[in-house]
Amino acid sequence: MNKYDNLVMNAAGRLVPTIVNGHEEIPFQGIGKHRPSGRKHAPFIPTVLDYPADGNKEVASLEEALRLCGLRDGMTISTHHHLREGDLIANRIFEIADRSKVKDLVWLPSASFPCHEPIIKYLENGTIDHIEGSMNGPLGNFTTSGKMKGCAVLRSHGGRFQAIQDGEVHIDIAILAAPTADPFGNGNGLYGPSACGVLGYSLADYMYADRVIVVTDNLIPFPCMPMQIQGNYVDFVVKVDKIGLPEKIVSGTTQITRSPDRLMIAEMTAQFCLEAGLLKDGCSFQAGAGGTSLAVEDYFHKILLEKKWKARFCFGGSTEYMVSMLKDGSVEYILDAQAFDLEAVRSIRENPNHCDVPVFNAYNFHSKGNYAGMTDIVILGATEIDVNFNGNVVTHSDGRLLHGIGGWQNCLHSKCTIIPVPLFRDRIPVIVDEVTTLCGPGSLIDVIVTERGIAINPLRTDLIDKTKGSKLPIKDIRQLKEEAEVICGKPSKPKFVKEVVGIVKWVDGTVIDALWKIED
Amino acid sequence: MNKYDNLVMNAAGRLVPTIVNGHEEIPFQGIGKHRPSGRKHAPFIPTVLDYPADGNKEVASLEEALRLCGLRDGMTISTHHHLREGDLIANRIFEIADRSKVKDLVWLPSASFPCHEPIIKYLENGTIDHIEGSMNGPLGNFTTSGKMKGCAVLRSHGGRFQAIQDGEVHIDIAILAAPTADPFGNGNGLYGPSACGVLGYSLADYMYADRVIVVTDNLIPFPCMPMQIQGNYVDFVVKVDKIGLPEKIVSGTTQITRSPDRLMIAEMTAQFCLEAGLLKDGCSFQAGAGGTSLAVEDYFHKILLEKKWKARFCFGGSTEYMVSMLKDGSVEYILDAQAFDLEAVRSIRENPNHCDVPVFNAYNFHSKGNYAGMTDIVILGATEIDVNFNGNVVTHSDGRLLHGIGGWQNCLHSKCTIIPVPLFRDRIPVIVDEVTTLCGPGSLIDVIVTERGIAINPLRTDLIDKTKGSKLPIKDIRQLKEEAEVICGKPSKPKFVKEVVGIVKWVDGTVIDALWKIED
Repeated sequence: MNKYDNLVMNAAGRLVPTIVNGHEEIPFQGIGKHRPSGRKHAPFIPTVLDYPADGNKEVASLEEALRLCGLRDGMTISTHHHLREGDLIANRIFEIADRSKVKDLVWLPSASFPCHEPIIKYLENGTIDHIEGSMNGPLGNFTTSGKMKGCAVLRSHGGRFQAIQDGEVHIDIAILAAPTADPFGNGNGLYGPSACGVLGYSLADYMYADRVIVVTDNLIPFPCMPMQIQGNYVDFVVKVDKIGLPEKIVSGTTQITRSPDRLMIAEMTAQFCLEAGLLKDGCSFQAGAGGTSLAVEDYFHKILLEKKWKARFCFGGSTEYMVSMLKDGSVEYILDAQAFDLEAVRSIRENPNHCDVPVFNAYNFHSKGNYAGMTDIVILGATEIDVNFNGNVVTHSDGRLLHGIGGWQNCLHSKCTIIPVPLFRDRIPVIVDEVTTLCGPGSLIDVIVTERGIAINPLRTDLIDKTKGSKLPIKDIRQLKEEAEVICGKPSKPKFVKEVVGIVKWVDGTVIDALWKIED
Repeated sequence: MNKYDNLVMNAAGRLVPTIVNGHEEIPFQGIGKHRPSGRKHAPFIPTVLDYPADGNKEVASLEEALRLCGLRDGMTISTHHHLREGDLIANRIFEIADRSKVKDLVWLPSASFPCHEPIIKYLENGTIDHIEGSMNGPLGNFTTSGKMKGCAVLRSHGGRFQAIQDGEVHIDIAILAAPTADPFGNGNGLYGPSACGVLGYSLADYMYADRVIVVTDNLIPFPCMPMQIQGNYVDFVVKVDKIGLPEKIVSGTTQITRSPDRLMIAEMTAQFCLEAGLLKDGCSFQAGAGGTSLAVEDYFHKILLEKKWKARFCFGGSTEYMVSMLKDGSVEYILDAQAFDLEAVRSIRENPNHCDVPVFNAYNFHSKGNYAGMTDIVILGATEIDVNFNGNVVTHSDGRLLHGIGGWQNCLHSKCTIIPVPLFRDRIPVIVDEVTTLCGPGSLIDVIVTERGIAINPLRTDLIDKTKGSKLPIKDIRQLKEEAEVICGKPSKPKFVKEVVGIVKWVDGTVIDALWKIED
């Protein structure tokens, strides 16, 4: 692929390629402008005749299972990221592929982590052509260094489901780690030494892949219930010694920030939500598992208790903090796509109001509605926000790709999106003239909360009206930018070579931005 | 349609039509001979843009919802049967269609009941062309009287999923009654005045229909959890006063037979299972909710307790008897497709080992395996069994269609299928020379238990060997037939006109038999 041909300006004013890895892509058309046509991907009709009558699909090894699935050059291999930094399966797949001299694979993880750094050698030796999925840390850095053979494709969690469902990306083999499974292929994340709570990111994979392999280190007799993975979609089951490193799956170290600045940002965020009438009886919210987000949740919790309000639901990733709200009734339901600590895993297992909700239901944009739009308050992070409220969540200001999109783009569709961020990190301003990479258009980002003030998107006249007369330090976003520049100086622009190394998809499958190779 | 053209002899020696309701059909090819080709039905890709951002899909009435779905001539309308004899929704749909002067609809229920007798007038006046689904009682009788305009299509529960999934039948509008639902369309059968436990028969409908309407009499704020119906597939939600008559949904009157003959049959069945080594520690079984089946279960229960064995799972329809086994640990899991009494509904709500399992997982033949083949013992009923062990479960010996197939064909794929039946009913022998309607080939039916003896299928030499020397009255099936004929006389054959009024599908979508019009 010629990486720097076929560039067009999309509706967000970003230069993006129209041919990526040999496939035609649609440039971003504007929010709500692209309408899908056609039908969902239709898998082949299987028959019970091709599967063991007694339901036992166990084979001796992952190698054997991959062979039986017909692993060959150019295939797309998918995995989920529920084992996070403790995942032992993804690296193993490509080690096997490498040994089998298979080339030009596409890896489609629901996310990748620093533990996947060994994948770099398979990218270098041609086993893997490119990755479609988030690239945290080393793999991201590898990408923006221009070393990946094919072009990286970044999607949100919801966008990944959309792309698989719509047939934009076709999975040849899905390899799904399951903390507990039975020989039929039913699996869940609730039990076993590698318990991770839920497995909702694997839904698109097993529904739409040609072949599905379940890998477990806790094989129990049929039936493994509840079946977060449904064996009726599974071809082979493999028992291995260990699918993950428990201490890195659920670290139990997800903690509220202790930084006084971050705590202040969190408190201001909660206060803003209260004054703007967003935080109220029956409301719903989502916050990530970062230290500041957890602190916001903690302030929400205090306010809910004090006011004797109940939030109707909050959306996970779940932590012990969220679980404590469920326990004391401050929150009625946790809808959960992933569990971040052991208390959350236990809660999913035991509390019927802590519900397993795949990203399909929460985030898929090509669905008959989804949950994102129903959520009153969403608390998100960002690496950069620009003066037009555009957000970047994947690259740093030096152009390096270091983070995945996660559910970030999907959550922007909430009723109110609030981004609490420090004004600068390591003396690099967070509020900038123009984001390095556009992940979310400014019209969907409502409020920025920093330690030196709160900026409300001018489009949200309702929020501006509601907080008129507030003691909160509400300022123009440009003023916040200038305050940061007074302290840190004007940030320098990243130096790019004119070579596309990746694209960022929008929730509807269009291309919202490109990632560029960094100058050596 | 000319109903008596295009007849061919299928692999079971039955005369079946190759064109039915204008569609080409494949005659039964023999067990395990037909292999599907092609891909699953692919629904249109929807977009969140077409649905309310706040998730509220409520519309004023069922009439309004049907109008918004574009109800028009020739459409296929599907419903589920979880409200059984208490269903108030199906009749209402066709009343609306009739008022709207819509013609030639196809009704695709997962089952119909005597309460649907009012549908007859819509069949008579052309609102409905024909029914694809079981027809218990009045509708069945109407069918074999030759009065249905189109040709009836009977499928098993698993076959219905297969047909929808494979695109053999395309649902224009699915109308799904939900005892509890939220405005987004999430629904379940666990709560509310019309609670019926589970809603698993609706899965194929909402996954594959063009349009989906959820009708509820218990609308709660989002999120309705667990989501046995997923709102992401739902177009409209309608609140009505009453979706069902609770006393007829879960009657609580499902009782063990008191007939001494039936009890003896049940006891012999249990004893046979014990002696043949089928009933054992870790085994699995399924029995229906008929009085004899419940009695068999009760004997199983006693044996399990006495031997201190645990069955690994039993498959529902569930009743208080099955629940009592789960409670005392005689059974580890109930996998459930429908609840027959209030105790079962409560158990599904409260016991995590009482699991909601849609027929897709249990019975779909065009799946990567299903549960039927994993089940050690299945206890089924039959209207007739012939000397070649072929079974009929839909028509009586006079040719009248009076029963649905239910999961009967699907269950035949278990490791051992046992049919406990009286030798005669109302002086009509049950064991006959040739079944009136072939629903299941004899090679899949292993044992017949009657009050006068047990017949083992000669193919099952293993069972014959295991029960050699048993005190059980094991006899040749022909001997049993003759004993019945000594008492009742030779039964007369039904008198048919050479006109096909319905077809019976096999689990793989082929046509195993035809239903014929009865002579006036």
